[in-house]
Amino acid sequence: MMEKNLPIRALLSERAAFVERALEEALSPENIGSSATADAMRYSVLGGGKRIRAFLVLAFADLGGGREDAALPFACAMECLHAYSLIHDDLPAMDNDDLRRGKPSCHIAFGESAALLAGDALLTYAFELLASDPSVSAKSVREAVLILSREAGEFSGMVGGQTLDMALSVDSLGELQTLFLEKTCALLKASCLLGLYAATDSPDPDLIDRAERYARALGLAFQIRDDILDATSTAEALGKPIGSDARNDKKTALRFMTVEEAQKRVEELTAEAVDAVRGIEGGQILADLAVLLAERKA
Amino acid sequence: MMEKNLPIRALLSERAAFVERALEEALSPENIGSSATADAMRYSVLGGGKRIRAFLVLAFADLGGGREDAALPFACAMECLHAYSLIHDDLPAMDNDDLRRGKPSCHIAFGESAALLAGDALLTYAFELLASDPSVSAKSVREAVLILSREAGEFSGMVGGQTLDMALSVDSLGELQTLFLEKTCALLKASCLLGLYAATDSPDPDLIDRAERYARALGLAFQIRDDILDATSTAEALGKPIGSDARNDKKTALRFMTVEEAQKRVEELTAEAVDAVRGIEGGQILADLAVLLAERKA
Repeated sequence: MMEKNLPIRALLSERAAFVERALEEALSPENIGSSATADAMRYSVLGGGKRIRAFLVLAFADLGGGREDAALPFACAMECLHAYSLIHDDLPAMDNDDLRRGKPSCHIAFGESAALLAGDALLTYAFELLASDPSVSAKSVREAVLILSREAGEFSGMVGGQTLDMALSVDSLGELQTLFLEKTCALLKASCLLGLYAATDSPDPDLIDRAERYARALGLAFQIRDDILDATSTAEALGKPIGSDARNDKKTALRFMTVEEAQKRVEELTAEAVDAVRGIEGGQILADLAVLLAERKA
Repeated sequence: MMEKNLPIRALLSERAAFVERALEEALSPENIGSSATADAMRYSVLGGGKRIRAFLVLAFADLGGGREDAALPFACAMECLHAYSLIHDDLPAMDNDDLRRGKPSCHIAFGESAALLAGDALLTYAFELLASDPSVSAKSVREAVLILSREAGEFSGMVGGQTLDMALSVDSLGELQTLFLEKTCALLKASCLLGLYAATDSPDPDLIDRAERYARALGLAFQIRDDILDATSTAEALGKPIGSDARNDKKTALRFMTVEEAQKRVEELTAEAVDAVRGIEGGQILADLAVLLAERKA
């Protein structure tokens, strides 16, 4: 069970360290070998990140009455999936980004072919992690595979978001919202739902509805806050060049609203996220997380 | 049930047409949308190929006493997985091949970013197909996800084979065999085992052993025959430039043996494949397939 009395920052660090240990084990040479691709996988997954997706898996497993250790392979699966998406997104054919979290991106450090294969292998390994946990029922595993494959896929999922992002233009706030829903919210939604299915093979429909509303609001707020930080922060704080979204003609909320309007929208969405988890046991840490992310500086 | 009295060539065409219809449905705009990525997915999966992997899924499902229509989503999953591997393998960062099955490869036809995303989406969709068939038990789905993720992954799986292929050199026949086992045999093995698990959630261990032996021998024979054809066939017959393996410093069996020795090895391996399915009901078509592939001209 999560220690719920820690303030959210401390809880987030404590959970990140817990997940990091599990990822180190999952990605150890005993489990994935020691090739160039395996090294590139470890480089991209380990040693950093807020582990928001893993945190959501564990928190929703707890909310659903499940045991945290049973949810850990699902949490690791989400982090592997997320890392794959960043590796492929950074490739020259995509965003062509040389930096990721303040260090050389995977293809800069290991070359393009190793980066491509490391992404492919991490996506594949995410599904292996979903299916390899003996403490989760086969029925839950089937649901988890369906959820992850749909939310990560082309049709209204994360790859679909990347497809939109590669298209020439996004001409309205509505189109931008669709992009954010697919690119960011889809994996957050998968994280929350995977947590519920790690706890039980037939989650309470009210919790499923809350999970979906929470993930949607959290993801949209996160993405708009990202756009604000990209425009107003310093390169040092962000670990990447500032203003890169505007320079690359990326799809940023600031094409359609001022920084002040955008921050107001972040606050509205954060209130929606908080509302989605109000009045349920274990909901407070999720509300605190939404507030923390809305106020983050990097 | 398969019509077992057709000669193998006719049976293979009949099964390929059956699978093609299922793939057209699985990859229809209703199911995967109509974006550039979805178009690239359809381009790469539909309209060609021998559908060997799907054939193996269906034949082993039949062998295990299962219904063919229940195995069809698993068969489609294998073809999507195979298509993803070819798309990413053809990319400039990998083999940089402009032609595939006699037509422009995916990144030539759709651009590099659409090809990258189409591969990612097909890999993801393969797992969705495994989990979305209501006529297969959850326990079988869990086993199928484990099998496919392991055989397609980095650790002794297909991506591991690609990793070896990208390494500078393969200096012995033993290393070359490891490369073939991971690059080719792993997905054939997954196809055979998926067929058995589509039929039942606890296949006969003797059938599992036979499936593994058959896939290993079939895959090695297939790969060596490929090397022979690359060196001796015509560009027209193959649908790609001949001698490209040698030019690209690829790892070909002909670096370690003469064409005659290689053909002798193909025949030995084919005999092993035939032996693996001897004496079981439904085994004859698998024996016939092994012989057909050993004698193929393209």
